[in-house]
Amino acid sequence: MLEHSLQCALDERYLRRALQLAERGRGHTHPNPLVGAVLVKNGRIVGEGYHPRAGEPHAEVFALHQAGEEAQGATLYVSLEPCDHHGRTPPCSLALLEAGVGRVVVAARDPNPKAQGGLERLRSAGVAVELGLLEAEARAQNEVFFHALRRRRPFVLWKAALSLDGQVATRSGHAAWVSNALSRRVAQGYRQWLPAVMVGVGTVLADDPQLTVREPDFRAFPHLLEPPPLRDPLKVVLDTEARTPPGARLFAPGPRGEPARVAVLVGAGAPAARIRVLERHGATVVELPREGGRVSLEAALAWLWEQGVDGVLLEGGPTLAGALLRKGWVDKVALFLAPKLVGEGRGALLGFAAGRMDEALGLETRRLELLEGDIWLEAYPVWR
Amino acid sequence: MLEHSLQCALDERYLRRALQLAERGRGHTHPNPLVGAVLVKNGRIVGEGYHPRAGEPHAEVFALHQAGEEAQGATLYVSLEPCDHHGRTPPCSLALLEAGVGRVVVAARDPNPKAQGGLERLRSAGVAVELGLLEAEARAQNEVFFHALRRRRPFVLWKAALSLDGQVATRSGHAAWVSNALSRRVAQGYRQWLPAVMVGVGTVLADDPQLTVREPDFRAFPHLLEPPPLRDPLKVVLDTEARTPPGARLFAPGPRGEPARVAVLVGAGAPAARIRVLERHGATVVELPREGGRVSLEAALAWLWEQGVDGVLLEGGPTLAGALLRKGWVDKVALFLAPKLVGEGRGALLGFAAGRMDEALGLETRRLELLEGDIWLEAYPVWR
Repeated sequence: MLEHSLQCALDERYLRRALQLAERGRGHTHPNPLVGAVLVKNGRIVGEGYHPRAGEPHAEVFALHQAGEEAQGATLYVSLEPCDHHGRTPPCSLALLEAGVGRVVVAARDPNPKAQGGLERLRSAGVAVELGLLEAEARAQNEVFFHALRRRRPFVLWKAALSLDGQVATRSGHAAWVSNALSRRVAQGYRQWLPAVMVGVGTVLADDPQLTVREPDFRAFPHLLEPPPLRDPLKVVLDTEARTPPGARLFAPGPRGEPARVAVLVGAGAPAARIRVLERHGATVVELPREGGRVSLEAALAWLWEQGVDGVLLEGGPTLAGALLRKGWVDKVALFLAPKLVGEGRGALLGFAAGRMDEALGLETRRLELLEGDIWLEAYPVWR
Repeated sequence: MLEHSLQCALDERYLRRALQLAERGRGHTHPNPLVGAVLVKNGRIVGEGYHPRAGEPHAEVFALHQAGEEAQGATLYVSLEPCDHHGRTPPCSLALLEAGVGRVVVAARDPNPKAQGGLERLRSAGVAVELGLLEAEARAQNEVFFHALRRRRPFVLWKAALSLDGQVATRSGHAAWVSNALSRRVAQGYRQWLPAVMVGVGTVLADDPQLTVREPDFRAFPHLLEPPPLRDPLKVVLDTEARTPPGARLFAPGPRGEPARVAVLVGAGAPAARIRVLERHGATVVELPREGGRVSLEAALAWLWEQGVDGVLLEGGPTLAGALLRKGWVDKVALFLAPKLVGEGRGALLGFAAGRMDEALGLETRRLELLEGDIWLEAYPVWR
């Protein structure tokens, strides 16, 4: 029996390894969470695994497979509670019992009621179960998953690049570029992290963005063991009147040749001819109710949620960002502040305005870093 | 003879001490520079001094006085070249020679042509002179002095508090408060650092500020050995039509009972009756030419320069800040960015606008710190 404090240090180290392994699935597991698992026997890692993609086996299964006979009496370190339900794969709890795992160290409980119960089953079968080590890290790693399950709608991250005096473009609309090249490469990481990216049709018409994951700079994410394989997000356009040009660059195949996945969310009664053209160009066109003349944001988020999209990167312009903030549906903010003054230009938010200064939306800053002169800030709105 | 590397380390240590001593005069020496001096003999400090105020003796004189006979053969460490001219006090170069100082270590040359020559006189009299150690620190300490002498106009520091989305007030003009209490206390330090604070009459009418130095928080300035004695700055109001209310709070005595010093700069032909009222309330009213209907900023800065004001803290609103930026007359920027989103409100700059994003005014960030959640940034505009 190891001394207690040494055992604690080892537990933390192996569990941290499990969290790192989980990162390899980043961007591919939606709507499932990231999960990593490590099996340790007699002070040696005998099996490792992570959940690579929805529909594929869970992290524990890979670790058990690798460990084989060695799993007998081993300790499992896993970032999230092993599941106890028959989904697309059989319950991990049963597989762990069959393999004879003797102890399980878990960072966080699974918030999904359908999957819960693994810990209870293991405990009642006599397995030593420990819960809560590195829980905050585990929850942060899966903030999209946790948040979306609680709210029953996608997690919304608003990303914007501003000058220090808060302008996203000059008066004439010129915006190339506010932030520097490193910021723009780091920002592409968010398209990899989240399953979907959303813009308003105004942004498509003005900037004709590709919305692909080209060369993100992952140096800014030191917890990554290795960058996950790249893939493009689902591209979502809020487009009440179906004005998205069929020749827009977002319809083009991605940098790895993958066909673009585009959803154009139009308002009820949008011109049928334009809808048909968009569909011929490969878009999924969805007619949604209007609210105040525009596609209902509530309906848009609900539709995405039904499709299994648990997180959305909001890259649209000031109108869309302002509308979502007004509703209180922005869950995280990522700002890139460039060290420059634009003066009278275009602000970052339209249709959102605090009446008094003490009614401004407070932000809780979580990350503050310099990217070759730009300030990179991640923060959580404090909704009251 | 000490080993060379040890001597270098000691030189740097004593010179750093001289720079620290200089800080005790912060805010009181204008238009003179901050200067500190240390006399060292046989490895012991025998005299110290700093320049406390224009018209009072120079740092070297205090150090020599304290050292007395011990100055003979001592080494002088001084942050700025000893003067060689008969101003309000006799030349330090002669005093050092009379006292028999054997070696002089100087951080930076005096840029003032009237005062220069001390080093040459000392050298030609056989004193060992070393120049350039900690020069960057010494020039930064006296950036107001160096800059103003070069440009022949006051150094202008624009200070502003913005939300992260660049708003200084809500749409209705409500601005109390953008930044937090610690930021506001740190910001008062700038009123102490610079001899004058400048606002537009619009700010006086809207906010009725006191513009005094109340309780600055100097914890953010760790180089200070001890806080300098507080004093209020000259308060300068740009007020083309002499609309400053005689009952404005800036006319009231300061927190230490000192009478307010107020200069109201009005446009040629401003109403004489209102001018007389302001003068009766203790203001110095100066009629200056107009440019584009408003008091000429060039004339205003020139008048201040003639009064010996070598630095101005710009606390005025967006119009004044925009006008000075448009002229290219802002030399330093201090921003307090509060972690909040205001949305559509009032921007920090009016009358200043980049045509294209690559024509925005670049800033070179020098300081970036967190003040209980607010971001405090100091930067230098990169004028092209």
